[in-house]
Amino acid sequence: MTEPSSSTSARFRPPAIHQVKVEGFFGTWIETLAATTVHTLLDRCIQAGMLDQIDPARPNPGLRIPFQGGNSTVSTQMFWDSDFGKSIEAASYTLARHPDPALEAKIDEIIDAYARLQAEDGYLNSWYLRIEPGKRWTNLRDCHELYNAGHLMEGAVAYFHATGKRRFLDIMARYADYLCSIFGTGAGQMRGYCGHPEVELALVKLGRATGEQRYIDLARFFIDQRGQAPHYYDAEAAQRGDDPKDYYFGSYEYSQSHEPVRDQRRVVGHAVRAAYLYAGMADVATEFADHTLTPALGALWDHLTKKNLYVTGGFGPSAHNEGLTFDYDLPNATAYAETCAAVALVFWASRMLGLGPNRRYADIMERALYNGALVGLSRDGTRFFYDNPLESRGAHHRWIWHHCPCCPPNIARLIASIGTYAYGLADDGIAIHLYVAGEASLALPGGPVRVRLETRYPEDGQIAITLLPEIPQTFTLSLRLPEWAQGATLTLNGEPAALTDQVQDGYIQLRRQWQAGDRLELDLAMPVRRLHAAPEVGANQGRVTLMRGPLVYCLEEQDNGPALNSIRLNSSGLMRCDAVDELGGIVTLAVEAVRERPDKEEDLYTTNAKDAAPVTVRAIPYYAWDNRMPGEMLVWLREC
Amino acid sequence: MTEPSSSTSARFRPPAIHQVKVEGFFGTWIETLAATTVHTLLDRCIQAGMLDQIDPARPNPGLRIPFQGGNSTVSTQMFWDSDFGKSIEAASYTLARHPDPALEAKIDEIIDAYARLQAEDGYLNSWYLRIEPGKRWTNLRDCHELYNAGHLMEGAVAYFHATGKRRFLDIMARYADYLCSIFGTGAGQMRGYCGHPEVELALVKLGRATGEQRYIDLARFFIDQRGQAPHYYDAEAAQRGDDPKDYYFGSYEYSQSHEPVRDQRRVVGHAVRAAYLYAGMADVATEFADHTLTPALGALWDHLTKKNLYVTGGFGPSAHNEGLTFDYDLPNATAYAETCAAVALVFWASRMLGLGPNRRYADIMERALYNGALVGLSRDGTRFFYDNPLESRGAHHRWIWHHCPCCPPNIARLIASIGTYAYGLADDGIAIHLYVAGEASLALPGGPVRVRLETRYPEDGQIAITLLPEIPQTFTLSLRLPEWAQGATLTLNGEPAALTDQVQDGYIQLRRQWQAGDRLELDLAMPVRRLHAAPEVGANQGRVTLMRGPLVYCLEEQDNGPALNSIRLNSSGLMRCDAVDELGGIVTLAVEAVRERPDKEEDLYTTNAKDAAPVTVRAIPYYAWDNRMPGEMLVWLREC
Repeated sequence: MTEPSSSTSARFRPPAIHQVKVEGFFGTWIETLAATTVHTLLDRCIQAGMLDQIDPARPNPGLRIPFQGGNSTVSTQMFWDSDFGKSIEAASYTLARHPDPALEAKIDEIIDAYARLQAEDGYLNSWYLRIEPGKRWTNLRDCHELYNAGHLMEGAVAYFHATGKRRFLDIMARYADYLCSIFGTGAGQMRGYCGHPEVELALVKLGRATGEQRYIDLARFFIDQRGQAPHYYDAEAAQRGDDPKDYYFGSYEYSQSHEPVRDQRRVVGHAVRAAYLYAGMADVATEFADHTLTPALGALWDHLTKKNLYVTGGFGPSAHNEGLTFDYDLPNATAYAETCAAVALVFWASRMLGLGPNRRYADIMERALYNGALVGLSRDGTRFFYDNPLESRGAHHRWIWHHCPCCPPNIARLIASIGTYAYGLADDGIAIHLYVAGEASLALPGGPVRVRLETRYPEDGQIAITLLPEIPQTFTLSLRLPEWAQGATLTLNGEPAALTDQVQDGYIQLRRQWQAGDRLELDLAMPVRRLHAAPEVGANQGRVTLMRGPLVYCLEEQDNGPALNSIRLNSSGLMRCDAVDELGGIVTLAVEAVRERPDKEEDLYTTNAKDAAPVTVRAIPYYAWDNRMPGEMLVWLREC
Repeated sequence: MTEPSSSTSARFRPPAIHQVKVEGFFGTWIETLAATTVHTLLDRCIQAGMLDQIDPARPNPGLRIPFQGGNSTVSTQMFWDSDFGKSIEAASYTLARHPDPALEAKIDEIIDAYARLQAEDGYLNSWYLRIEPGKRWTNLRDCHELYNAGHLMEGAVAYFHATGKRRFLDIMARYADYLCSIFGTGAGQMRGYCGHPEVELALVKLGRATGEQRYIDLARFFIDQRGQAPHYYDAEAAQRGDDPKDYYFGSYEYSQSHEPVRDQRRVVGHAVRAAYLYAGMADVATEFADHTLTPALGALWDHLTKKNLYVTGGFGPSAHNEGLTFDYDLPNATAYAETCAAVALVFWASRMLGLGPNRRYADIMERALYNGALVGLSRDGTRFFYDNPLESRGAHHRWIWHHCPCCPPNIARLIASIGTYAYGLADDGIAIHLYVAGEASLALPGGPVRVRLETRYPEDGQIAITLLPEIPQTFTLSLRLPEWAQGATLTLNGEPAALTDQVQDGYIQLRRQWQAGDRLELDLAMPVRRLHAAPEVGANQGRVTLMRGPLVYCLEEQDNGPALNSIRLNSSGLMRCDAVDELGGIVTLAVEAVRERPDKEEDLYTTNAKDAAPVTVRAIPYYAWDNRMPGEMLVWLREC
């Protein structure tokens, strides 16, 4: 059914990390990551005992049962490799920005340990080599074995791109070669796949970085095998002597292995696993121009975005399965909406752009990025949200560390590499998906092209783009026109350009012979928008969310006092934008509203209608909440 | 600090079951219980394997691990005795109404088994005699041992009152005598108390039924010991070789044993345990005129009713601890609000009336009874709610049986004995707390008094009361004037009576020499009320609950279509009362509203304000929901 990998003009790939220099809004964030977060991540990983687990030069810690009662976060965990992988990946992206010998030495120390750990045959997993030796490949369903491999591969690719040093890449390529030898449809090969998808997209990255097609073929193999009958996890459980029915999550929907991926139409189960899987599917669809994956990917996208996505771009309302429940189940105060899920949605969306620019995907990518993902990191880069409610009574705050520290390195690696999400490169085209200030040095077949992008986005919507091809060349430049940007204007070298005819799939398509110095000025109007939720989302009825540009806004107690639900927005009330110094100059909104006066009497329920007095409330971007005093927070505001 | 038990005029006790013949609204419910529910309860108890567990004449089933995977509800459980006790209690109340030899034989069979089971020393607990022999009194904290004793005592008292047969009562008195010998402050006695309060109120009942003061003294002992330092559960755990810190619920707040009861001011922990304890405390306060319990009881009452009570009279929002969380945490869709908790609140409230009529307690008793408790039983008496959300997307329905079937017999025994909650008897007074149609045959010191109460309540608020003393006698008749009944009127033998001067603590106090045939006509106006929630209850802001008389109303999908949250009530809209045949003639409300039209487009979030069209919606009593087609339900309705 699928074609071999081939170069087609429709295939868009992200640039490598060193090709995009990020400034502006995200530049500031990345500076914080480089100065603080990535050090913190590696240090806390080591403090949690990860080096003890992986390094054969250290005494074997054995099984450390974690977190029972005491406050220690030191433990052994079958997923520790993934956290090292992600932390190295995040740190590498900052190294690509500017050298940091101390940071590089810290990473090299970890890589040394992995070099010591790797088995003769190439196998590399600290849990099964040190804590449960002899049990490798006995429980793909539950034990994150290939998931760990994937994250180490991503870390190795990033470190290679950042430093040019091949050692970690070679280690992981050797492991991947081993995986290629034991997984497959050949005699004696295993037909398994990981309960936690991730290795699929990682193998595509590794294949692209090394030029080894067989890694990308293995990614396709994992995708193709998933959910096939007879079910691999049934057979694997029986092999262990377990009853396949004795499965905590009951259904293989939890790991999206309940049916073959091409039959899937509904986003189900663990949210992060889902989006990682779909990202891998999209990569494979792009690499092999495999249109048999398209119906599933399109239906899954619609199912998520039309029925199961928080306005913040978070998803997965339930803590029980860290994932999906039923359509339109989008509770605010108890929203799980794990940071990792929003990050994973950015991954998935970016890969849906592999077959060409389309704002159906890019608008959602931006929504998840600026809201449900970015909220996971404190402004000072030291604290992290794991779950992300859209309403808080005041008790929800960022963690210093989490017993399952998956989110901190995940948001860090996303932000640190945001430049690679901003652009898509095809053989005869450049797409700009995100308006990230800075400069991209891109390689088209006709020669190198620098793209200089100047903007204060998302503070305002004015974007100046200067094209600097080394020699004049003809290609299509695609600029995303967000759905919210009604009344946008564009000039080319000072001349107004009509937008209507040139917009396709929500992108302005500009094909011409570009000269060095060609300058585009795009102005995306950014009025404050009041969003209503579909009637099926009961709790949000009679309420609105304020958005401006890509940013979802919320009220915080610090600005508005307690009892945020006693505030009602006037449906025609004025809204004004202010810059607020205490939050680093970000744009806040001043909104006319009324505030109901609390009853004098203390009764819980009364027949008295409440008086209301005019008040102006301040809304701040959702991503910026919980950076000042602890207190209430509310995204969906009452409107009358 | 406490006085010995003494007869005081301020002490009000409930009548016995055979003293009140119930007709009207609850008469119909009790007929359903008698015809269906109580048989169903006993049959399902036996089907669940309870007789196998308790009857030494049957093979010992050993430890039956229940509910793992399969659909069987057959198991052994340490709390099975309590379910038999409650089911026998409920069935006995219907026997008091009219004989049913088959039902009586079924109960006698169970009593036979308990007679065979009882140990030489009087001990009686099927778990520790048959499933874990030799371990009695090793874990009062977790194992419901005295809780089971209490429910069997209550069953025995009810069966004695209903049938006059003493056998079960004697069995339980023998067990109580044994308890009196081993619990106490004497040398070699245990100073423990049950992790699940219940035996306290049961011992008071048993003491009243048998005239044995020592049972009531033992109830006081359990109350007095609770939460004292050094903590009994710490010592007990150490004795077992367990670490007292290794306790699933972390804090003894779970069982309200975190501090001595007289120090308690906040309702905490497991909701049913809490209300059972406070009911026992109120009983002891009444029996011993013990005013040292009053500050705690008053503060606990206010804490519950002013900060933690659902408008339905349910409480305990969290499934995790089946109980309390933090003040004003009253989520609607995820409300746990166990049926048993509302039932237990009726128990507690009724006992707060022991020191005299006061609508502070009686109004709440009525609210919990007609709403949060009664909703637990289907109209046909065959299905039961365990948890009671105030909003449903359509997936919440009554159970045929529950793996922990505590609620079915609990709501059944409450309704079947509702006549005993309607009246309070003191030496020189009769209080009418609930307007339950029927006839009470009460014994005052001056001679017998029959009270005939005619009403369609809660269908309307017209109540006719005829007093029939055998000989004329002087006493105070106290009639509750609910807080909601603004503009009520009263006549005595046809003459208007002024209310204002005669109202004390929310009861109309009528003291005179009553003659046979004296007739009171009380008319409680029942306009529909719109209740607002305090601003601290965020999710309810901008919403109202409709009440009429004691009934909370809700919308159901069957009457109003789906997407109930797209309906907005006009704040000044007309409301009309209708009787609806399909729900047995109960009063429904027709309410003017608007309904927002769903967006044509399928987007989850849009900037389009929604059109709205006028519509008349139908509200039904909350207790009556989920008796027709499955669908959505909503208590807190949007208002504009």
